[in-house]
Amino acid sequence: MTDRLIYLPLGGAGEIGMNCYVYGYGAPGRERLIVVDLGVTFPDMDGSPGVDLILPDVAWLEERRDRIDGIFITHAHEDHVGAVGHLYARLRAPVFARKFTAHHARAKLEEYGVPADAVTVVGAWPETVTAGPFTVSFVPVSHSIPESAGLAIDTPAGRVVHSGDFKIDPTPVVGEPFDRDLWAEVARPGVLALMCDSTNVHSEHPGRSESSIGADIERLMAEAEGLVCATTFASNVARLKTLADAATRAGRSVCLLGRAMRRMVEAAVETGWLTDFPAVVPPEDAAMLPRENLLLLVTGSQGERRAASAQLAQGKYLGLELKAGDTFLFSSKTIPGNERGVIRIVNQLSEKGVLVVDDSSGRYHVSGHANRPDLEALHELLAPKVVVPMHGEHRHLTAHVRLAEATGRRGVLAVNGTVLDLAADPVRAVDYVETCRTYLDGSVLVGALDGVVRDRIRMALNGHVTVTLIIDEDGAPLGEPWCETMGLAETGQTGAPLVDVLEADLDQFVSRAHRKTLADDEALEKELRQIVRRSAQGEIGKKPEVTVVISRLA
Amino acid sequence: MTDRLIYLPLGGAGEIGMNCYVYGYGAPGRERLIVVDLGVTFPDMDGSPGVDLILPDVAWLEERRDRIDGIFITHAHEDHVGAVGHLYARLRAPVFARKFTAHHARAKLEEYGVPADAVTVVGAWPETVTAGPFTVSFVPVSHSIPESAGLAIDTPAGRVVHSGDFKIDPTPVVGEPFDRDLWAEVARPGVLALMCDSTNVHSEHPGRSESSIGADIERLMAEAEGLVCATTFASNVARLKTLADAATRAGRSVCLLGRAMRRMVEAAVETGWLTDFPAVVPPEDAAMLPRENLLLLVTGSQGERRAASAQLAQGKYLGLELKAGDTFLFSSKTIPGNERGVIRIVNQLSEKGVLVVDDSSGRYHVSGHANRPDLEALHELLAPKVVVPMHGEHRHLTAHVRLAEATGRRGVLAVNGTVLDLAADPVRAVDYVETCRTYLDGSVLVGALDGVVRDRIRMALNGHVTVTLIIDEDGAPLGEPWCETMGLAETGQTGAPLVDVLEADLDQFVSRAHRKTLADDEALEKELRQIVRRSAQGEIGKKPEVTVVISRLA
Repeated sequence: MTDRLIYLPLGGAGEIGMNCYVYGYGAPGRERLIVVDLGVTFPDMDGSPGVDLILPDVAWLEERRDRIDGIFITHAHEDHVGAVGHLYARLRAPVFARKFTAHHARAKLEEYGVPADAVTVVGAWPETVTAGPFTVSFVPVSHSIPESAGLAIDTPAGRVVHSGDFKIDPTPVVGEPFDRDLWAEVARPGVLALMCDSTNVHSEHPGRSESSIGADIERLMAEAEGLVCATTFASNVARLKTLADAATRAGRSVCLLGRAMRRMVEAAVETGWLTDFPAVVPPEDAAMLPRENLLLLVTGSQGERRAASAQLAQGKYLGLELKAGDTFLFSSKTIPGNERGVIRIVNQLSEKGVLVVDDSSGRYHVSGHANRPDLEALHELLAPKVVVPMHGEHRHLTAHVRLAEATGRRGVLAVNGTVLDLAADPVRAVDYVETCRTYLDGSVLVGALDGVVRDRIRMALNGHVTVTLIIDEDGAPLGEPWCETMGLAETGQTGAPLVDVLEADLDQFVSRAHRKTLADDEALEKELRQIVRRSAQGEIGKKPEVTVVISRLA
Repeated sequence: MTDRLIYLPLGGAGEIGMNCYVYGYGAPGRERLIVVDLGVTFPDMDGSPGVDLILPDVAWLEERRDRIDGIFITHAHEDHVGAVGHLYARLRAPVFARKFTAHHARAKLEEYGVPADAVTVVGAWPETVTAGPFTVSFVPVSHSIPESAGLAIDTPAGRVVHSGDFKIDPTPVVGEPFDRDLWAEVARPGVLALMCDSTNVHSEHPGRSESSIGADIERLMAEAEGLVCATTFASNVARLKTLADAATRAGRSVCLLGRAMRRMVEAAVETGWLTDFPAVVPPEDAAMLPRENLLLLVTGSQGERRAASAQLAQGKYLGLELKAGDTFLFSSKTIPGNERGVIRIVNQLSEKGVLVVDDSSGRYHVSGHANRPDLEALHELLAPKVVVPMHGEHRHLTAHVRLAEATGRRGVLAVNGTVLDLAADPVRAVDYVETCRTYLDGSVLVGALDGVVRDRIRMALNGHVTVTLIIDEDGAPLGEPWCETMGLAETGQTGAPLVDVLEADLDQFVSRAHRKTLADDEALEKELRQIVRRSAQGEIGKKPEVTVVISRLA
């Protein structure tokens, strides 16, 4: 059979976040594989209450572990590197990344006791890594974290480009500008396929440079009367520098709050990406400074409940407190789905009399992703035979396909689980892999479809009742059935305690039940559960989840 | 003591939704009272899983029931009238509303068996209702539902205006235009205080008329190739008419999907507000029509899981199915917090190949609330001594106070629970009432702070374990403790079943426990709960909620 060049997204193609893409080359079913990115996405109360992190389902890869020649991480954002620690044991393939990204990947692996040499640091293009039939090079792109890279992946079937997350920014403040000449060089031998970031495909205006917002931020810092507190993604090192530089020029000292903020600055200084960052003052010293001489740079731009922003909105944090006359700047965009958390903070700050400035004016934040005109520019620069949109929800991927086709290129839609053969002409789907999501739940990995979280959601919606019944040595009920409720109203329409109502109905059944019914655990359990649900429905209008425990005395 | 004119928001001042405002006049503590609006707000998984509706806490009013002279409903939106049925029994005061609003209020009361005559239909200004010391008149305003009204409330201390929800729309398509002359007449004797809608205070551009979007909607209907499905709030009767008229002109028959949609059209026709609405086709006939001759008008603009939009996005609904080439129009704005649900539908439609058109262009939706320039216009028209912002989150109320003060008026911030004396000079807070929220949970009303929902949230986050232990007649354990889990991983780090691990730890404790420990239910229960939590933390990294049932054989 003819060798194939396969592309299989396991995460990121049908969602924003949780990026994980597989490339393979070889005879069908025997392809050698590489993995690009192992990212996470974040849980929410609606669909994944109590879950700590959501990871791609790598079962397909795990079964083919002996065929994986490398894991390549494009950049150090959590949705690209966040699952490396949690999933490494399942894949055990060498990890490749540029220096700054490797720094973060190693920290994640260290938590699982994996030594640093699991990660190999690779220089930028023209340096290459050979991994099985693939020769891979990290080509710098501008994004919102240092050392972001797209990948030029050379295969026996031709060159494939994986864009990674990118924008076209000639003046990114920190890190490498987008280098058109370099990318033209990458494109020169011809590009078989471009796998391309889709997150901002619905933004129709040209992207703006990171350097375009510095002046406005500086003006805000200079004009603010009290303390200024600013939040952004900690990983946006360029923004941290823009904010810190503006503070310095406005006569404000910088204090970092939040572990991620401190860690990211340390990492950026250590790897040489952050030079002449002003000396920071610790919180205890910050509290002594005049308010108009202080900038707090804090985590929690998405309204996360435990982050510094949320803590400051609620009250004191490390001895610091926001007051009337202070200014709080969201130098960030609220990711869809996080609005409630952000609005909660805004209202809490409003109650304190703090002036809140958000990005609605467009002056204090720019995106790190390529808008529609920049996507078109990359298509044109690389002139791939086919554009395969990735990193986006379904609506983004389809819009990106339409964008490619509007300029006469071929766009191919490939959602998570789709196996494309990029060597086929035309490129087409050749297989479909069942993909799911994996939850990190406490310290355990569980499948999203295992039912564990579904049961928790049901308890959240319906409440819970425990029924216990003891059956004696003779097969007769010993005493009456007993109920305990959790998450249910204490009384319903009769005004009697709910447990009394439930127990009365249960007892009525048990006291009249045939010995045969009482002898059959399964049937008895089912019956008791139904009685509770029916009785609760009548009394309080809800059908609770029920745990029945039948104890038989030997 | 001097008589007071009090204003007390019980809902709506600190949130969008759940409007409920109290006015009172008389000697302190003996004021005669009227209530303006009894609205609801909607639950979410984050804070109120499993709850059906959120209602204002009317405990304060209930204690003073004999002093309530009337309940006035400004308009028929759920956040103003939705709690009338659920709370009527607690207040039992006469309800006053204009005809269309009364129609809806009566339907809600009917569900609780309250006869129609509990609601008195009142004509618009200059008609008045006398309620204790108050003389109240319904003054028409334009909004996004027919017969919306502000209230002119005459009191011995002077005239107060309660704006209700409003916008300044001279051409509202359905219902009454905003009549400046009429409002000037209301203002003539002087206005003591204006209680004013704040929801759109952050929108800086002038409001647009409902009639401004008809042409664009018609163009979309004419140019669409397949079926068009449009969603908006069912109560937005003007929008329904705009959409239906555009459909008719584009050669499309109209089919209504969703109970609320059919009910609202019926009510609007019945009360005379909707004239020459095209004849609608039932779903079974619609399925037979050529797709290019059909408009589906459907409920679920906010992504509600059970509404027609969500059902159509998932698959067939009443024999109708959306396909590639069809167009889905959100003629609506996504309310903050509902983004996830709406995006879910957009992606599902995208998977079907349906073109989704939303309001990002601003061409297919206008808001029903007054933007900042319209708020300023009302302030100017009424020239009140004081502006008291209502219906808004804290950030809206404070921005509205700042807006009033920017034009030299006095703005007073009064959040839920604040008692203002409007007769005092200057107007000031004279008391503070503890307010909460009431949950309709199934068929029962529970206090938001009762802990019922808190327990459900904990189970959703942490899972649940039931422990049962039988103690025999001699005070010794009979058999071993028994565990059942719900919402927890089956195995943890040791690889053994979680229940086995928990039971082993419990048994180890029980088998060594002193008789004294075993004799004390409370201490024993606490101990067993702690063992389960500790053991689960070690095994799976989570501390579950625990129900302990100790059965003692007599």
